Amino acid sequence: MQVFEGERVPLQKVKHVSVLRFVTEVNRQILLRKRPVGVPAVGDFEAASAAVSVPEAGEVLLKNLYLSIDPAIRGWMSDAKSYLPPIGIGEPIRSGTLSQVVESKAEGWPVGQVVQALAAWESYSVVSSQMLHGKVEPIKGIPLSTMLSVLGGTGLTAYFGLLEVGQPNAGETVLVSAAAGGVGSIVGQIAKIKGCRAVALTGSDKKCGWLTEKLGYDAAINYKTTDVRLALKEACPEGIDVFFDSVGGEILNTALTRLNYRGRVVVCGAISQINEAELPPGPSNYLQLLAKSARMEGFTTLDFASRYDEARAELARWIREGQIHYRDDIVEGLDEAPSHLLRLFSGEHRGKLLVKLTDAEGWE
Amino acid sequence: MQVFEGERVPLQKVKHVSVLRFVTEVNRQILLRKRPVGVPAVGDFEAASAAVSVPEAGEVLLKNLYLSIDPAIRGWMSDAKSYLPPIGIGEPIRSGTLSQVVESKAEGWPVGQVVQALAAWESYSVVSSQMLHGKVEPIKGIPLSTMLSVLGGTGLTAYFGLLEVGQPNAGETVLVSAAAGGVGSIVGQIAKIKGCRAVALTGSDKKCGWLTEKLGYDAAINYKTTDVRLALKEACPEGIDVFFDSVGGEILNTALTRLNYRGRVVVCGAISQINEAELPPGPSNYLQLLAKSARMEGFTTLDFASRYDEARAELARWIREGQIHYRDDIVEGLDEAPSHLLRLFSGEHRGKLLVKLTDAEGWE
Repeated sequence: MQVFEGERVPLQKVKHVSVLRFVTEVNRQILLRKRPVGVPAVGDFEAASAAVSVPEAGEVLLKNLYLSIDPAIRGWMSDAKSYLPPIGIGEPIRSGTLSQVVESKAEGWPVGQVVQALAAWESYSVVSSQMLHGKVEPIKGIPLSTMLSVLGGTGLTAYFGLLEVGQPNAGETVLVSAAAGGVGSIVGQIAKIKGCRAVALTGSDKKCGWLTEKLGYDAAINYKTTDVRLALKEACPEGIDVFFDSVGGEILNTALTRLNYRGRVVVCGAISQINEAELPPGPSNYLQLLAKSARMEGFTTLDFASRYDEARAELARWIREGQIHYRDDIVEGLDEAPSHLLRLFSGEHRGKLLVKLTDAEGWE
Repeated sequence: MQVFEGERVPLQKVKHVSVLRFVTEVNRQILLRKRPVGVPAVGDFEAASAAVSVPEAGEVLLKNLYLSIDPAIRGWMSDAKSYLPPIGIGEPIRSGTLSQVVESKAEGWPVGQVVQALAAWESYSVVSSQMLHGKVEPIKGIPLSTMLSVLGGTGLTAYFGLLEVGQPNAGETVLVSAAAGGVGSIVGQIAKIKGCRAVALTGSDKKCGWLTEKLGYDAAINYKTTDVRLALKEACPEGIDVFFDSVGGEILNTALTRLNYRGRVVVCGAISQINEAELPPGPSNYLQLLAKSARMEGFTTLDFASRYDEARAELARWIREGQIHYRDDIVEGLDEAPSHLLRLFSGEHRGKLLVKLTDAEGWE
């Protein structure tokens, strides 16, 4: 990746995009200023302006349209070892994005194409084509932003995590933590489509109401105001077959005690632990896995990259048929990204958090 | 199950067995006197004599020949919820056994048949036919006691745990804790048969030597004298694909950090925790399952009950072909059972612990 110099813009390749605006713009970025201690603070980020880079062979230059605000970002801000390296200090915050190709040196990714990408919190990103997770075409009646929520990484996480890792069977009980979040709100609805009993864990009565009344969860537990052990006994009278967990900590530990024979714990995340400086204790009830011949399994959507199109087609059908309802929580402007991320941890949001940067060119 | 009264012995059914000895004998038992606190002590048990019971419909009367001394017994002595109810105070200690049918009211289980059973520490047991886990026929060149070790629950645990839960592929690295124990000593050899690199964790240099020199482990780590994290780095240079864990605690937690993408942790037990009064913390590194798209899965051999014969046939073939070596650690006399169980926790033993009560009648 080279730093862009004005005279090197390959103008002849920029077809569908407003060249005039592009060449006069700088790349606005949000950088990692320092690694957060505990819950991230606005001071962990800093805004910056840089020259726009040009792509080399196998790369594309993207204009970022929407940023996907996910718990994974908090993980990448730490220097813990994970499936991707940590974000470096002074680097733009890594993020799922919805972007438009404005210059391409990667075959099959033409200028003007709207894509799902793993890029960053910045106006423009240069990425290798491996970071492009799919082409996005307009779907009648479905807003573009949905491509980052139900039809993006969020929906894919719910889809593959529940169906492939959790393997729910009709008639089984599926428990979902962080159920009002972007992923959790979809998981419960897929569980219902598959004929399961769906039970939600969430942090407010308002969210409980939304989950049972609008999204079709069979029961919802406010873990902040109830004894979760007793509430689970009541809400899951036949035990838990699949626990789709994005929370970890005491919620996971308690749910393990209600797991059925051959139960499955889908480890999607641990938002209760993600801000801890010291690694908190693991689930002391993990030996329930032995007692119940059960399993606990992690995953990322990358494990299923070859099947994204199939999953998106099915999710789009469920939206059109009214079997999946959703709400996206969208703010506008790159500078809003840090404070929107912090809302993930305050538990105030419902549905998927997105930051809109700009509209796609040439789209309605 | 009724208490035996002398005159009710159905003599006509007792064919292959010395009736005279049977009717004059009482049932010698080892009972659970009180639930252990921490490591079990001899005082937690008490010897007793009772009348021999007679079986009702669907039951058999067994003469117990060998007792299988397993960590699971310690679990059953606690009142924690598990896949089987706890042993009641005053009840004989539940145990895997090799036994001979001396009276049968269960179709297909004739008098004289030697069987693997889930019975108890006593001379005679009355059990339902569901507690009979297979018929035992003489195999040339293989001692009867092997039917409780490599060809019994121990071998079946190694076989199904490694092959079905662990699913090792040729060229992968299989790490085994408690590797010198009954199960672990077999797991490593099956891993080698399947073309894997087998790495042992055990508690003495002597056992390390036995594992690498006699059993074919590629490397063995004495966890008591080395930094396990560094030793694993050296012994598993390409990471861990399958961790067959019977130990839990810090060993499990450390191994999780070396797990490969799509790694599998086979949860066979947690001997390091089994004597703890309070549930110790779980593995704080469990989120490695998320980072590595890995899984942690428990099992018992009962999950594979329909396939015992297939597994025993393959294990017997491996013994005959010299691909599996083993040693059984056998003491004689029912009264030795409690102290033999305690040796499980002192880490002094190599191979499978057995207590011999008597010979089978009509066998060589």
